[in-house]
Amino acid sequence: MRPFHITLKTNILLLIVGSSLLYDANGQEENQAFFIKSIYEHTLTNAKCDNWLAVLSDTIGGRLAGSVQAEEAVSYTQKMLEEQGLDVWLQPCIVPKWTRGDKEVVRAFWKEGSREKDSALNALSLGNTIGTGPSGLRGQVIEVFGLDTLDILREQVKDKIVFYNRPMNPTRINTGHAYGEAVDQRVHGASRAGKYGAKAAIVRSMTLSYDDIPHTGVQQYADGIEPIPALAISTIAAERLSQLLQEYSDLEVYIKNNPEIHDSVTSYNVIAEIKGSTFPDEIILVGGHLDSWDVGGGAHDDGAGCVHAMQVFETLKALNYQPKRTLRCVLFMNEENGLGGGKAYAKESNAKKEFHLAAIESDMGGFTPRGFGCSAHPKVFKPMLTSLQKFEEYLVPYDLSIKAGGGGADINPLKSQQGLLIGFKPDNSRYFDLHHTTEDVFSNVHVRELRAGAAAITSLVYLIDQNGLDE
Amino acid sequence: MRPFHITLKTNILLLIVGSSLLYDANGQEENQAFFIKSIYEHTLTNAKCDNWLAVLSDTIGGRLAGSVQAEEAVSYTQKMLEEQGLDVWLQPCIVPKWTRGDKEVVRAFWKEGSREKDSALNALSLGNTIGTGPSGLRGQVIEVFGLDTLDILREQVKDKIVFYNRPMNPTRINTGHAYGEAVDQRVHGASRAGKYGAKAAIVRSMTLSYDDIPHTGVQQYADGIEPIPALAISTIAAERLSQLLQEYSDLEVYIKNNPEIHDSVTSYNVIAEIKGSTFPDEIILVGGHLDSWDVGGGAHDDGAGCVHAMQVFETLKALNYQPKRTLRCVLFMNEENGLGGGKAYAKESNAKKEFHLAAIESDMGGFTPRGFGCSAHPKVFKPMLTSLQKFEEYLVPYDLSIKAGGGGADINPLKSQQGLLIGFKPDNSRYFDLHHTTEDVFSNVHVRELRAGAAAITSLVYLIDQNGLDE
Repeated sequence: MRPFHITLKTNILLLIVGSSLLYDANGQEENQAFFIKSIYEHTLTNAKCDNWLAVLSDTIGGRLAGSVQAEEAVSYTQKMLEEQGLDVWLQPCIVPKWTRGDKEVVRAFWKEGSREKDSALNALSLGNTIGTGPSGLRGQVIEVFGLDTLDILREQVKDKIVFYNRPMNPTRINTGHAYGEAVDQRVHGASRAGKYGAKAAIVRSMTLSYDDIPHTGVQQYADGIEPIPALAISTIAAERLSQLLQEYSDLEVYIKNNPEIHDSVTSYNVIAEIKGSTFPDEIILVGGHLDSWDVGGGAHDDGAGCVHAMQVFETLKALNYQPKRTLRCVLFMNEENGLGGGKAYAKESNAKKEFHLAAIESDMGGFTPRGFGCSAHPKVFKPMLTSLQKFEEYLVPYDLSIKAGGGGADINPLKSQQGLLIGFKPDNSRYFDLHHTTEDVFSNVHVRELRAGAAAITSLVYLIDQNGLDE
Repeated sequence: MRPFHITLKTNILLLIVGSSLLYDANGQEENQAFFIKSIYEHTLTNAKCDNWLAVLSDTIGGRLAGSVQAEEAVSYTQKMLEEQGLDVWLQPCIVPKWTRGDKEVVRAFWKEGSREKDSALNALSLGNTIGTGPSGLRGQVIEVFGLDTLDILREQVKDKIVFYNRPMNPTRINTGHAYGEAVDQRVHGASRAGKYGAKAAIVRSMTLSYDDIPHTGVQQYADGIEPIPALAISTIAAERLSQLLQEYSDLEVYIKNNPEIHDSVTSYNVIAEIKGSTFPDEIILVGGHLDSWDVGGGAHDDGAGCVHAMQVFETLKALNYQPKRTLRCVLFMNEENGLGGGKAYAKESNAKKEFHLAAIESDMGGFTPRGFGCSAHPKVFKPMLTSLQKFEEYLVPYDLSIKAGGGGADINPLKSQQGLLIGFKPDNSRYFDLHHTTEDVFSNVHVRELRAGAAAITSLVYLIDQNGLDE
């Protein structure tokens, strides 16, 4: 029985890998559809991206710029890219360093009759916030639903804790749009409240989930305004606080946190490259950001994007593909709280007068791929979009579409080079459940979905490399 | 502060529900795009489908036709549909009754030198299988990768346990296709093995996951062949067994299970209806199947499809929509192991000379909606598809597409009525991780994705009702 058994099993394996073996990298008549099939076959069965992501997310962990974990992530991905036989280098960049300190305390106090009651509100400090000092602070709370309200309330805000509680709009089909519409509260809330003398700001977590998980994220102090502590509370805590405020007008909230803002430090973008054989000066960049928030493992945000980019190169190497154009993998540092990596990359690239024909960023998680969205300098956008959309015929069988609109925080500074900026678009229904939380870990990544994303991006890189983006 | 606070909050709520309040159901100039927006707004914020599904899946639980749970599901959904103010009735159908009995035992035995070793293999009996008897059975194992192999091996199979181990093809983009290509082993494996005198059949679980969760599902005995016990083992168990077989040619497997095949019983389809105001004889059916496998809660398969269908009616009622055509919700019984409900429905419908202009079935889970696939009698298919695809302009903003190909096991018998059969297509990457397992429970359903599916189906029902399917 054994020989028969082995023959059958071997035949099946050959069926699965056969088409990639048949591909002739030097042939003139290569069939692009056929090569894309090989990309999918290799990636769905033999990708390394999931192993890399498990290490980044769960072994190394949260990788805020300036942290030991961020440095470990630099070394690890550098090594993994070198193992692919790529030319790899580190590009220095200056990044802020902020540390969270002890577990934050946020607690509501109110009186029911003569009895004082209190309740903990699950919270996380927002990135770059100052702390309350060791004894914390306590004050009355004023609930608002937008920044502009502060300009109306003005002196009524003084010495209060401002509570921003405008939910993400659940009727938005694209959850990214819902996030974009609500996130001003988190980014600018403390500054606007501080302008009118508030003593702290708390913000409803940026998520469509109703749960007790707080979501951190960056906040920015405006110049010339006294900084005040800024924290996010879970959506359950936000709803509870709102309810309590309606019942108990004398409610107070106590806040204690002790983050620290340190001096800026030098960190690195990790860059790997294969020089193009025919058009070496036309660069196709594919990247994600290596840093993440300190809580959780930054698995979807943006470990997934990094390993997507790395997988593109592993797959093309495995298929013996020799690119016509220069393919560059860039793992950016400090997307989350400063964009130091993206700025340093663009600055050096512009100084060298490089031309990025296309830059693709994956920073919306490792979910089922839906397609790509793109943008560019107005001068070149229409013809380039038209050119990119010609590739849809190859991508539709993989359930992918190409649309206008999209890019990425790290690649956007390259717009002046007049190439195409492309954002990878996976299914977005679950991204903001996990985004910037303790739950953004490898166990919440679906390996097949992650790999399918890598295959989608590899296919687009291949199509652009083969065909360019001429009108 | 309070009045201000309330005003702001109220404004936000009005913004969210405003558009549906503005809709005038009697207006002649109604804007279909606007109404679809209202459908989404209502469903994403106020749907009841998730509450219904929690009860079906986790309170009632697995609902195999003929079980107490199936009868409870009939009563529960009847009551919920009546609460929507619909005309509801039960349609009798004859269903097989099969019970699993005690936890199955499957165990491999082999000798390492003189030491006998053994290992449990996680298993579930397949639906409608016979049992081994109380002392179980033990035999040598022959591993194969397809049914046809049995026709070659023939007498070598006698008294063996046949182990079907052809995996679902991971390179298929549509996991449903991978399932369709592999499932013959589960459905017909025991019968083909029995034909050549095998004593039992075990089959690798139908999933792309590599885990220790066995997947049950229906198997069918062919007439005139002695039935033999049939069980599925987890993919981890299948890989382990395959490995052991290569190392130990004297390996034996012991199997014990005690399912029972009972006499057929009467069960019911649950049907609810709103009569059409203008074309009452043109029926638009929307449905799922109420039965599920006995393990797990049948949350995605197919509690989700049932509550999708029910939600269509809740939403249209909430929006005061008066349909032109007759809208019918059908929750079919016995899809999993006999299709008794679907057959009874088609038989009565044909006897009454009804015409189903369109029948939509949701039976691929409660994941992010991707669109619809359709089929029909060849005579009418092309014009009807063209007609349906005209609606894409309304659906593209919701990330939905309409394609050829699709239907549903319960609605397929309606094809002779020459209407359009439509299958709802959600994202399929995770469906077969859970399908027919203990893990198909409400906690593995994402509420927003479930609701978005209901909104998608409601939108299509509305468009067909408004516009018909004329060329």
